[in-house]
Amino acid sequence: MHVFYQPDISNNSVTLSEEESKHCTRVLRLKKGDTVHLTSGRGIQAIASIADDNPKKCVLTIHERIAHTPRLTHLHVAIAPTKNFDRMEWFIEKATEIGIEEITFIECEHSERNKINKERCEKVAVSAMKQSKQWWLPKIHNIIPLKKFIESPEKKSLKLIAWCETNQTNLLQEEIRKSSAGNFTFLIGPEGDFTAQEVELAKAAGFIPVSLGENILRTETAALYGCAIVKTFSK
Amino acid sequence: MHVFYQPDISNNSVTLSEEESKHCTRVLRLKKGDTVHLTSGRGIQAIASIADDNPKKCVLTIHERIAHTPRLTHLHVAIAPTKNFDRMEWFIEKATEIGIEEITFIECEHSERNKINKERCEKVAVSAMKQSKQWWLPKIHNIIPLKKFIESPEKKSLKLIAWCETNQTNLLQEEIRKSSAGNFTFLIGPEGDFTAQEVELAKAAGFIPVSLGENILRTETAALYGCAIVKTFSK
Repeated sequence: MHVFYQPDISNNSVTLSEEESKHCTRVLRLKKGDTVHLTSGRGIQAIASIADDNPKKCVLTIHERIAHTPRLTHLHVAIAPTKNFDRMEWFIEKATEIGIEEITFIECEHSERNKINKERCEKVAVSAMKQSKQWWLPKIHNIIPLKKFIESPEKKSLKLIAWCETNQTNLLQEEIRKSSAGNFTFLIGPEGDFTAQEVELAKAAGFIPVSLGENILRTETAALYGCAIVKTFSK
Repeated sequence: MHVFYQPDISNNSVTLSEEESKHCTRVLRLKKGDTVHLTSGRGIQAIASIADDNPKKCVLTIHERIAHTPRLTHLHVAIAPTKNFDRMEWFIEKATEIGIEEITFIECEHSERNKINKERCEKVAVSAMKQSKQWWLPKIHNIIPLKKFIESPEKKSLKLIAWCETNQTNLLQEEIRKSSAGNFTFLIGPEGDFTAQEVELAKAAGFIPVSLGENILRTETAALYGCAIVKTFSK
């Protein structure tokens, strides 16, 4: 099953982007008449056939649309980007494969990076979505200060903040087990972790500090571990 | 806390390798008298001070040893290495951070690689162990045919094989919940998945096919997801 990304599949005739056209005709060597699948990134799968295998603008005809039911859990991870951004691209790829709905990059006191390439991040997410044959594309938000993110009115969700600095916090899985929430917001700090003040600020806004266990995980490992546990335990 | 790797810490005077010595004196700029920690990779933590900050052979004096209790679960992942080995190094790094005891590379029918660089793998594991401040180093085994691995007498463990090709398998977490095992052996196939014959062979040897959910995960993502779930659910 070959899946292509097309945000707008309302019309029955769809022309793939130059990049997707090249991938379809040159890399996968698909020909006129071959069946392909489209994902809108918003839950719609379309089954189509190639009407014109033009390697620059490949035209598809949609025959059927399938509306996939939304996922049971909505996970929004807010993460301080690492200095080496490859680690963030890796996180985006893996989190998209496992299933994540939203990613926001945050600027913290110990942050080592205050800029991200949103377009590049979205490219990574799109290819991971296609590769893992999914119908939902995570929403990626630009970088904002932690304070602003914490204060932004978030729809009702279980708000968690990963914090290494204390032994008094519950384990992530215990907090998830206790709760019946379907929406999760998870804060992951920079290499240098959150400051005590940042954690207090988050607590005041309703975030619960959680531990990810004894091991000191890298930022991107902590975030992906969090995705795996939230997505599995909350089911 | 600066952690260095030293397999043999039986003597109170320890000389770091040239690489570790350079890291200690040049990168971390530690000086004579500074306190450092050593991990044997076998559960022993030693607290030492620098007796000679020679950048080529840094000498440490051990003052105290702490024996850490073994982990509750023993996880052995057998995985078909990906063509692009960076993905395996990434898996080794992340699995070591989260906690894994053994990794064996296997050769399957759809394998795209039948050689690995064991030394390189061990280097990645050592640096991840130090970076995540752990006292246990995962054991990494060389590549062997799947059949040989399946038939090798494994100590009593819950044997699982990840398989996408069927909807009749239980979810990984359900199999773990049902079991009271402390030892887990988990088979992860190549990009092209296991063949039906390979799965039959594994089943005959007591392996239970499990699903990792709806999404099609890459080999290394499946393996890491498995580590996170086994390590968390089995606790």
